[in-house]
Amino acid sequence: MTTRLSQLFVRTLRDDPSDAEVASHRLLVRAGYIRRQAPGVFAWLPLGLKVRRRIEQIIREEMAAAGAQEVHFPALLPREPYERTGRWVEYGDGLFRLQDRKGADYLLAPTHEEVFTLLVKDLYSSYKDLPLSIYQIQDKYRDEARPRAGLLRGREFSMKDAYSFDYTDAGLDLSYQAQRDAYERIFSRLGMEYVIVHADAGAMGGSRSEEFLHPTAVGEDTFVRSAGSYAANVEAYRAPRAEPLPVDGLAEPLVFDSPGTPTIATLVALANEVQPRADRPWEAADTLKNVVLRLRTLEGDVELVVVGLPGDREVDMKRAEVAFAPAEVSAAGDEDFARNPGLVKGYIGPWSPEGAVLGETSVTGIRYLVDPRVGDGTAWMTGANLPEKHVLSLVAGRDFIADGIADIAEVREGDPAPDGSGPVELARGMEIGHVFQLGRKYAEALDLKVLDENGKLVTVTMGSYGIGVTRILAAIAEGNHDERGLIWPRSVAPFDVHVVATGKDPAVYGIAETLVSELDGIGLDTLYDDRPKVSPGVKFGDAELIGVPLVVIVGRNAAEGVVEFWDRRSGERRDIALHEVLDAVRAAG
Amino acid sequence: MTTRLSQLFVRTLRDDPSDAEVASHRLLVRAGYIRRQAPGVFAWLPLGLKVRRRIEQIIREEMAAAGAQEVHFPALLPREPYERTGRWVEYGDGLFRLQDRKGADYLLAPTHEEVFTLLVKDLYSSYKDLPLSIYQIQDKYRDEARPRAGLLRGREFSMKDAYSFDYTDAGLDLSYQAQRDAYERIFSRLGMEYVIVHADAGAMGGSRSEEFLHPTAVGEDTFVRSAGSYAANVEAYRAPRAEPLPVDGLAEPLVFDSPGTPTIATLVALANEVQPRADRPWEAADTLKNVVLRLRTLEGDVELVVVGLPGDREVDMKRAEVAFAPAEVSAAGDEDFARNPGLVKGYIGPWSPEGAVLGETSVTGIRYLVDPRVGDGTAWMTGANLPEKHVLSLVAGRDFIADGIADIAEVREGDPAPDGSGPVELARGMEIGHVFQLGRKYAEALDLKVLDENGKLVTVTMGSYGIGVTRILAAIAEGNHDERGLIWPRSVAPFDVHVVATGKDPAVYGIAETLVSELDGIGLDTLYDDRPKVSPGVKFGDAELIGVPLVVIVGRNAAEGVVEFWDRRSGERRDIALHEVLDAVRAAG
Repeated sequence: MTTRLSQLFVRTLRDDPSDAEVASHRLLVRAGYIRRQAPGVFAWLPLGLKVRRRIEQIIREEMAAAGAQEVHFPALLPREPYERTGRWVEYGDGLFRLQDRKGADYLLAPTHEEVFTLLVKDLYSSYKDLPLSIYQIQDKYRDEARPRAGLLRGREFSMKDAYSFDYTDAGLDLSYQAQRDAYERIFSRLGMEYVIVHADAGAMGGSRSEEFLHPTAVGEDTFVRSAGSYAANVEAYRAPRAEPLPVDGLAEPLVFDSPGTPTIATLVALANEVQPRADRPWEAADTLKNVVLRLRTLEGDVELVVVGLPGDREVDMKRAEVAFAPAEVSAAGDEDFARNPGLVKGYIGPWSPEGAVLGETSVTGIRYLVDPRVGDGTAWMTGANLPEKHVLSLVAGRDFIADGIADIAEVREGDPAPDGSGPVELARGMEIGHVFQLGRKYAEALDLKVLDENGKLVTVTMGSYGIGVTRILAAIAEGNHDERGLIWPRSVAPFDVHVVATGKDPAVYGIAETLVSELDGIGLDTLYDDRPKVSPGVKFGDAELIGVPLVVIVGRNAAEGVVEFWDRRSGERRDIALHEVLDAVRAAG
Repeated sequence: MTTRLSQLFVRTLRDDPSDAEVASHRLLVRAGYIRRQAPGVFAWLPLGLKVRRRIEQIIREEMAAAGAQEVHFPALLPREPYERTGRWVEYGDGLFRLQDRKGADYLLAPTHEEVFTLLVKDLYSSYKDLPLSIYQIQDKYRDEARPRAGLLRGREFSMKDAYSFDYTDAGLDLSYQAQRDAYERIFSRLGMEYVIVHADAGAMGGSRSEEFLHPTAVGEDTFVRSAGSYAANVEAYRAPRAEPLPVDGLAEPLVFDSPGTPTIATLVALANEVQPRADRPWEAADTLKNVVLRLRTLEGDVELVVVGLPGDREVDMKRAEVAFAPAEVSAAGDEDFARNPGLVKGYIGPWSPEGAVLGETSVTGIRYLVDPRVGDGTAWMTGANLPEKHVLSLVAGRDFIADGIADIAEVREGDPAPDGSGPVELARGMEIGHVFQLGRKYAEALDLKVLDENGKLVTVTMGSYGIGVTRILAAIAEGNHDERGLIWPRSVAPFDVHVVATGKDPAVYGIAETLVSELDGIGLDTLYDDRPKVSPGVKFGDAELIGVPLVVIVGRNAAEGVVEFWDRRSGERRDIALHEVLDAVRAAG
């Protein structure tokens, strides 16, 4: 099919939109693909919609190949199913909520686990009906606190969300793998680089969970990967737990005065001055920092917890959120300390000469968790829980016993991969897909059971698999552009080829018309710049901005049977015989 | 492509859903096409989605043929543009409204005039950019007071809405005609009967407006049509206005006592008893009934208005709503009469022996409107606005003068078509499409102007064109079923052919497998009932329920090369040679 640029509903802009932070947003607006309607809410012009449809088509084909069937749910859903799984509350401010004229509560669904579960419950009742994988491509809503970067984090966005239903764990593994394989094929066909990282299931519940991250500097996610096969979202990275060490012969705790040591650095400096150690100077890593956190459960209950971690590391609050989910976590405030006079601020430690300070059986009763590096038999310098006093040679497992592990310290370049595949490096990525083993969480909450081979009711186990359609589009734009405009991969370009006729000679336009009808004849989708009164410079600028990867320029040599073949990506322009254009375009595909 | 029924996500139901009032709803649920999520909100199973996609495809092809380009807007839109056109308020309770986390107002769009207008304003600025027609196929929301009849009146529904933009009235006429023609082609391809009726633009504003009604007993709209070319929604029917008659020689008003005449019938009976007329008995049509209505403007102002109409007709409140829109209209209540003691309830008339009672310059100051049949020179029996008194021979234009016309009386079979094409008949229909000339209402409210040929800024004139995708699907189901199930027209059937293999003989299934792969080979979309353990009766029942129009039964004679060819619509089943199936299926298309 041929689309004439003179007729196309588009307007290219010379200037960047003022609110655009990233290249994809800037260029998709400037090239006339999308327009903002509200923060994080966009309208799609014909060019944008064409790219979107091509991405959707690839996803549909691979979903079919994976045996998933398409269904379609409304965005507007009743509160009740989300109430039953707790997500009506858990989503907090992130959920768009509304009431109908009768005062009944509704939401704009951010994801559809509940209603897919109920639909399967409605239709199916036997193990013979399973496995089942169903999906939809649908507009979703999240009331992001800070919608940003155009389509990369919108409040309205299109997703493919698929759900699998099995009655055995082995079945779930197969369904999960089928979706995971389909995702690999989808991203390959889209020409997108991706890394599959371990992820934390977070508020979604469930067990196995992996994210497909597209490495990019504008990504919101940080991930780690080793030279080996290990890759994980930082939230999912698990530091190896220190092996227990023998305590025989270790020095006894030594309390010392430490006035004026508000920071780890000042404490270390003081120690090196007044309590120098024999082998090497004291370092921040020798100190045990005790961070007081405040947890707030969904029911509104508040608990203080103290986490001990090596003094050279900060708490990563995103990791802490995951570790303590679904409770909300924040740093303890003055009122928390006021309510717990047993904690000596600035000098908190698990032990004092007066006895155990932290831990569920201690005098304060406050839960004490430690970093995985704080293994039994390790010795630390830490607060003595007395004003202006610290303690040396405090040994984990001997002088204090933690209630458990909290792996919430920041992850650093060079930290070991938990699978032993060497040190990790840190990188930025954008989540473009996510595969989850939800397990039986939703089926239990909504009572989805089937009869198994023995006539026994068993709870169904589920998987949830999401791909952000509009985010992928933006990610491709982000990774495929130069300073002059977009450069689409052929698989998702709005057109296969862009024919530009230049000058004012009607004969040139006649030749171009013949060419585009020939391209049409071989089934290509062609954009034809037929505007007679627009200068070649403006036409070339528009071609660069719009970003069809292959441009054919029909100009003054056309009468002699010569046109220009322009590879938008390499920038190469070369003369080519008119009669060779069809073959050349085919070959470029 | 072949879909195996053993794998298809579907479950047919033997029983009707309890909440289903109409056949389409009942059968679409029973055959596994849709499932209810909330009142007027449905999920689409694979079968339903396939039919929906086929309807959408036909619409897209005809929109392209009409030169309309596809775009896509979100359902979630900010309040501001709807505020500027007044529709934020006008829609009343019918609009789903919500707030984001910052308290900003949003709506779920029931229609998109405002944002299409703003998008064109954003992109275009010259007459050279016009005409433009753009459309979307998108899920819309209306908070219906009484969602009913399944998809026929849902709260979430899919629509194709198109908008045209021109800078001259003649251009709008052409754009309107192009959409109107496309609608005719769409409904013809869908095999749907339709009547194009004059419609009232109502809250949408604008001038020319026509509805495409599908005649059906379950339709919510009543329309009239003459044997000639006239057809109109009853709301848009306009009674011909009576020609003025000479008043010379007409009797003077005669007041008479009329106690105990609470109804028109009792009044007529009394008149025939105490004041008989010479030529014929008094009839209800000789009386002038004065109905007091209460109008409430959008701003909340209340006005009483009295409408005089022949006593043999009732007020049609839907016609009254249209006539007085955007004000809300209701019957006056006791408090209204209490506040207007000048009105003598039960005996209201425009005139009394004491002078003019109704009319803007009268003693009450209440606006008085009359039915078009109450022409100057017509004489009436009506209330004398005195307790227990009526008046005879009260002549319009002589004894009272109305402030205007209110054409709100019920329309009756046999009323004259306003274009002189004879008497009308009444019929029920369902609105399946609507074409509007909006004119400059939205462009003015949102300041959409372009420069014309002379460099002068002119306001753009617009059209709005809607087709209900999900409603059409239901309407087709409503018109294409029997007591055993659905019978789809081939153009929208979920599959081209349904192959049913029966019995337990593996050889039969082998033959069926070969057949479906041959059907696949000629590009047909086939549903294959491959369930080995299901009885033929259940399989045939499912085939009837699902409603693929062409069924091929591969049974015990298959080994001899004979299968059964079943026309679902006629019910005819005939033997056919296996090798002739492909030709027969092709021929049936």
